[in-house]
Amino acid sequence: MKMILSLASIISLLAIIIPVAHGGKVLVFPHDGSHWVNMKVLVEELHSRGHTVTVIRAADSWYISETSPHYNTVTVDIAGGASEDFYRLFVSEVIKIKRSQGSAWARFALDMELKEKFSELHKKVCEMVVYMLENKELIKSFQDTKYDAVLTDPANGGGVILAHYLRLPLVFNARWTVHGEAHFAIAPSPLSYVPLPPSELTDQMTFLERVKNILFYTMRMHLYKQVAGPHYSALSNRYIGPDVDYFSLFQAADLWLMRVDFVFEFPRPTMPNVVYMGGFQCKPAKPLPQHLEEFVQSSGEHGVIIMSLGTLIGELPQDLADEIAAAFAKLPQKVIWRYKGKKPGTLGNNTLLVDWMPQNDLLGHPKIKLFVAHGGTNGVQEALYHGVPILGLPLVFDQRDNLLRIEARGAGKIIDIFTMNEDIFFQGIQEVLTEPSYRTNIQRLSRLHRDQPMKPLDNALFWIEFVMRHKDQSPL
Amino acid sequence: MKMILSLASIISLLAIIIPVAHGGKVLVFPHDGSHWVNMKVLVEELHSRGHTVTVIRAADSWYISETSPHYNTVTVDIAGGASEDFYRLFVSEVIKIKRSQGSAWARFALDMELKEKFSELHKKVCEMVVYMLENKELIKSFQDTKYDAVLTDPANGGGVILAHYLRLPLVFNARWTVHGEAHFAIAPSPLSYVPLPPSELTDQMTFLERVKNILFYTMRMHLYKQVAGPHYSALSNRYIGPDVDYFSLFQAADLWLMRVDFVFEFPRPTMPNVVYMGGFQCKPAKPLPQHLEEFVQSSGEHGVIIMSLGTLIGELPQDLADEIAAAFAKLPQKVIWRYKGKKPGTLGNNTLLVDWMPQNDLLGHPKIKLFVAHGGTNGVQEALYHGVPILGLPLVFDQRDNLLRIEARGAGKIIDIFTMNEDIFFQGIQEVLTEPSYRTNIQRLSRLHRDQPMKPLDNALFWIEFVMRHKDQSPL
Repeated sequence: MKMILSLASIISLLAIIIPVAHGGKVLVFPHDGSHWVNMKVLVEELHSRGHTVTVIRAADSWYISETSPHYNTVTVDIAGGASEDFYRLFVSEVIKIKRSQGSAWARFALDMELKEKFSELHKKVCEMVVYMLENKELIKSFQDTKYDAVLTDPANGGGVILAHYLRLPLVFNARWTVHGEAHFAIAPSPLSYVPLPPSELTDQMTFLERVKNILFYTMRMHLYKQVAGPHYSALSNRYIGPDVDYFSLFQAADLWLMRVDFVFEFPRPTMPNVVYMGGFQCKPAKPLPQHLEEFVQSSGEHGVIIMSLGTLIGELPQDLADEIAAAFAKLPQKVIWRYKGKKPGTLGNNTLLVDWMPQNDLLGHPKIKLFVAHGGTNGVQEALYHGVPILGLPLVFDQRDNLLRIEARGAGKIIDIFTMNEDIFFQGIQEVLTEPSYRTNIQRLSRLHRDQPMKPLDNALFWIEFVMRHKDQSPL
Repeated sequence: MKMILSLASIISLLAIIIPVAHGGKVLVFPHDGSHWVNMKVLVEELHSRGHTVTVIRAADSWYISETSPHYNTVTVDIAGGASEDFYRLFVSEVIKIKRSQGSAWARFALDMELKEKFSELHKKVCEMVVYMLENKELIKSFQDTKYDAVLTDPANGGGVILAHYLRLPLVFNARWTVHGEAHFAIAPSPLSYVPLPPSELTDQMTFLERVKNILFYTMRMHLYKQVAGPHYSALSNRYIGPDVDYFSLFQAADLWLMRVDFVFEFPRPTMPNVVYMGGFQCKPAKPLPQHLEEFVQSSGEHGVIIMSLGTLIGELPQDLADEIAAAFAKLPQKVIWRYKGKKPGTLGNNTLLVDWMPQNDLLGHPKIKLFVAHGGTNGVQEALYHGVPILGLPLVFDQRDNLLRIEARGAGKIIDIFTMNEDIFFQGIQEVLTEPSYRTNIQRLSRLHRDQPMKPLDNALFWIEFVMRHKDQSPL
């Protein structure tokens, strides 16, 4: 039996299945830096569904380009305060101090400098907001455009103030806020079993670890009051209302899209207006460029190891790079190592140094056996999506916390990069490669992660559009 | 341009879109009585997706029939302890005592009797479980069948013990547990803004109301320890392990399908393994039987009011029924009243008394202007789904709490049935009929409720099947 369907009827059938774009308008206040990589995924998807997106950026923006086929920009003629160079320098200082088991004073001084830098960043964001709110013409154009929602990353508070000033619904694309991990700002977080990154704790804590968790929480709240709170509170008082507390505005966001997946995250309380989209940026692998495919295929049955320590690590101390290269050289596998530093003297023939690699496409390649990674959220989520076990070399921020979640489920192993040598690194690689449970476990996590009624990105878009559709109709 | 698609290719396309049934096996331990009405919806849907369902029932089951095209039964030759007659009698006693403003002693005695009855019910459920666990042949047949999951209503604890004994994943179809509203057993529940039904409080509480809420919570925990805890703990100790606490087994359920929708419920913390399926039983209205359709159409522009006080109210005290009928008689609307008692002397020509009515089909009919209801969860959810404002006459249990949630959003009004007379009832009807905000508000709630990425029933089934698919693969 044959049926004849015209293209038109197929399109109308698809229109029933796929939610129809309705040409809304979204104002985006991103958090510059690597956070933009995530926000861009949502911006492009909004655009592809027929919405008009306006992105606010600083004139010296670190990541956000001024022209794009996917969004318009409003460029604020103020330097944004974040600089990739600072973070690069910071990470390399951390490595130096930790490897030399540097003095407590050196570490304290570095922490103070970081705090100063964060404070400066929030101050600059506030200057951007003031610049806009004082620019009558710009605000009028925002008002005339009749946006349906403000989408922001609450790692800074600029979007919160702007949304309340314009009386627009507020959608968060969140993982971190200025108060710590985003859940801590909205859901009950019993510190007895909810570890606060970067405490480097799991959900199974001894009494002393719980004490540590409480101290971390207290420090974080203190840090907020020192580096961010006063800047934003001053803005709330000035532009929203004399007694309006910034934190309340912030908590009143309509929708929290969390870059979290409970296959990866430890169980914890949540709230009904939190939507989980962990792994929303993951996609099936595309074919590799020919030279890479050839290199990968040349590995034969041994397969390939890939290594990347993220964008902030251009290079490593020479002796450390040598130890790593020497360990790789002893392996029968091929290795692709994203590394911008001087070529290590110990580099083996099996190791390819690259400036950049198509990480997602490599992770999805059946020949890839192991991912040596620093533990950034995106990389860990991609490895989980593709089911590739991880050997983790955490450096700073939440990287060890991310990797702990993988290690706790037997899907990877952490090595201390600051004290490791060629032997320790080699043993680590061997263990994850030869003990089958690592692969079995990460592939189990991968199956669980992928088994969702909707793709995380589609779910996120549904709820953004839900807020846009019902913007005058609380409660959510 | 034309495209030719064979039927086979269309079916294989649909197979990608619609999750495929995989012929699993589910063991169901329901809670007898009106709870079965909800469970049956899941059972029938499981069956329609190709799963084999076995339902455990008592020989004298109140609601669960022994033969069905949708499920097999295991009949336990023990009386189940619940009886519709008792609840009918109880409700009519409550009405009598409350209307006569009966002595505190009379109300206390009635409460004690209810407590006794609940304790008896749990004891009988435990006897059913013991009967099964001691029946080697039956247990062996359960084990040989290799079920994929146990589905139970945690209003009793039988299914919890059985699932742990058989080492099977445990799925809850939950709204109430023996500890109160189901969230209270699993999620943090700050008593400052989370009201515990039947406290008759909202999420906005004065200091004294918060005190009341704490007292209710304490009472509930006390009640649990008196009427249910010891029975189930004895079973856990005997069959699962000598020191195994029943409450921990209970909290360890893999999946909580909550018959809750946050369009209706006040915001509160939740947990990641809670899936909301509030309104899963609602469906579009079917055409009415001809005689009803004619009656409804005869109402002209005035429209129709329907009234039902649920299955437990067969009849009302004669004088109360007379007041209600007299108020209806004064209206230009037509009225359909589900009432089994003696025909009131004051009954008007505009009022049709019926033994039973197709409530969902009536609520979905455009001529229906108002639903006079006692506030049972199902009825309230159906009114919300169809967008019909409610005049609430709560009687017992959580009915006032349900109606409070409607009233708090301006979508209905509560009248105290125990003190009302013809005038008060008439005024109430007039107010909800003539003040347009009631209809606007319930229709807004209806739009919000229906705007979900998946139908609640499909979502529930997806997650039941998720547990079945990954049963050997914790964590969820």
